[in-house]
Amino acid sequence: MDDRLETAYEAKFSVLDMDVAKKARGASKATGPINEAEQKRQAELMKQASIAVQSALGEQASATGRRVFFARHGERMDRVFPAWTRLSYTELGNYKPYDMNMPISMVPRQNGVNDFYDDPPITELGYFVSQLIGRGAKLNCINFDIVYCSPALRCVQSAHGMLKAFTKTKPKICIEPGLFEYMGWYKEENLNFLSTLEMAIQGYEVDPDYFPVISCADLKTKYKNETIEEYYKRTGDVIGSILSKHPKSPYNILFVVHAPTLDAGSRFLTKKTANVPDANDLKQVGVHYPFGSVVALEENKSDNTWKLMHCALPSISFLDCTNRIDFKFFNRP
Amino acid sequence: MDDRLETAYEAKFSVLDMDVAKKARGASKATGPINEAEQKRQAELMKQASIAVQSALGEQASATGRRVFFARHGERMDRVFPAWTRLSYTELGNYKPYDMNMPISMVPRQNGVNDFYDDPPITELGYFVSQLIGRGAKLNCINFDIVYCSPALRCVQSAHGMLKAFTKTKPKICIEPGLFEYMGWYKEENLNFLSTLEMAIQGYEVDPDYFPVISCADLKTKYKNETIEEYYKRTGDVIGSILSKHPKSPYNILFVVHAPTLDAGSRFLTKKTANVPDANDLKQVGVHYPFGSVVALEENKSDNTWKLMHCALPSISFLDCTNRIDFKFFNRP
Repeated sequence: MDDRLETAYEAKFSVLDMDVAKKARGASKATGPINEAEQKRQAELMKQASIAVQSALGEQASATGRRVFFARHGERMDRVFPAWTRLSYTELGNYKPYDMNMPISMVPRQNGVNDFYDDPPITELGYFVSQLIGRGAKLNCINFDIVYCSPALRCVQSAHGMLKAFTKTKPKICIEPGLFEYMGWYKEENLNFLSTLEMAIQGYEVDPDYFPVISCADLKTKYKNETIEEYYKRTGDVIGSILSKHPKSPYNILFVVHAPTLDAGSRFLTKKTANVPDANDLKQVGVHYPFGSVVALEENKSDNTWKLMHCALPSISFLDCTNRIDFKFFNRP
Repeated sequence: MDDRLETAYEAKFSVLDMDVAKKARGASKATGPINEAEQKRQAELMKQASIAVQSALGEQASATGRRVFFARHGERMDRVFPAWTRLSYTELGNYKPYDMNMPISMVPRQNGVNDFYDDPPITELGYFVSQLIGRGAKLNCINFDIVYCSPALRCVQSAHGMLKAFTKTKPKICIEPGLFEYMGWYKEENLNFLSTLEMAIQGYEVDPDYFPVISCADLKTKYKNETIEEYYKRTGDVIGSILSKHPKSPYNILFVVHAPTLDAGSRFLTKKTANVPDANDLKQVGVHYPFGSVVALEENKSDNTWKLMHCALPSISFLDCTNRIDFKFFNRP
């Protein structure tokens, strides 16, 4: 049994790209053989181009203010494997994945699998896509100064994945219960999120000293019977309160949240607070903001408005899927 | 420019799960708190169960012979990004991914991007799924003794991914041009595969001393005008020739190949050589054997027949996709 356990973790470990450095030495960014003179000429051209771009960016930077990135968590386990809590646990309570998109090990919960019903983990694909989001940010020279995250396990795990690309300066994750999604979906449920201590034990980069705008206890009592309008207002209030703590720019704030929070948050910042979706539309909001989608907004300091940053991060597309948002829905009045 | 290059590779490196050991220490396989007496009782039950299973497996093992795993390569770059060779290279010939499912660095080719038209790389998802296949094999205690691989870059990269889980005993990859797919699809093309030396430089675990059944030169000349029937026969001949080199069992042989080769190979072993698909059906064969699908066959030593091993490897499912094969097509007479 111990042997098997070791094998599982070893397998997980060895799935990783340990020979990247070696590959990098062998690989070339160029497609074909180029002679030395040509290489020098290209390097000079590239240098001139980057100087031009940098000076242009410098001028632009003075007008632009803070940047906010609303990212949706990765693929939920229960969306792909609806019966996973029943099928992947042995009678002895041991977790055993039956599909390789399921994580190899599972976070322990206070009430066993019961705590997963309304607070599921992400799949391996969800974790993979989260890491690609971080990679895209890093390649586009976007460093997150701070991360605010819903207390839902799927969001915390996604935030952890997004931060993997940032090895030198890893921002802390502030767990903000006020960023949890519409409580109307959880009226009859007994939400039992991981504590920040439990999250830290799992290796998630949570800030133990963060004092939330809305506590977990308040979320579960005061907001239990909120309407959709109240949920949109709560989300806006929490984001406004968080932004007021970070008045200076440049400053990049990453929010790792839920599909309806991407909508509520960006509509709050762009001052489109009318046209809150009805119950049926809200259920479909995950179609408009797919798993791993990101909405990036930038502040204009001169008039205090926020505008969508098109292509702030590269898209992530595979097979017939993409993480691009539905701009028709996003741009509704 | 150098800085940017370093950032790219660093980002790639840091995407990896470096804190798995830490997570393992914090995590538990069990879902909830279990007291020590209960733990001991469970360990004893597990031990008894595994002894029973092992003795049953021991009896079975004498009758079973070699095992063959036909795996299809991961997602092709050109399937998701049809214009990638045009859009992801700068005018200076530098590769720059525009979607995070594209690899961060690209293998250099003798004729630049031209060599990619008929020999594309896999995407990051393709590489990820390949790694999950290896993880699934390892978790099911399947070690590959040897790997035979089509010379196509997408197959070699996938084989590399599948072997990642096997850190201690990594089998060598034998590049066998005779395993390349139907040449009728490449009549007008100038296939220019990587040499085994170029593959080794990329860090792929190729066996430089393997002497192929059909050489690359022969594939491109003698088989250029093959019919579909001839392609199915060629595939069967090559697999038969390879199997004759490994008469002993237990022995696990992994073939990393193409969708039609999964069909041709398994029909050769199960002696269903009639009903070769026509040109239209062959084009659709990738639908029946998705990217990253695996057909596992086991030999019965007593009568020299080969039978499908159901559930030899766990499936890989996400969003609306799966790597499961279409059994209706597979089981056709």
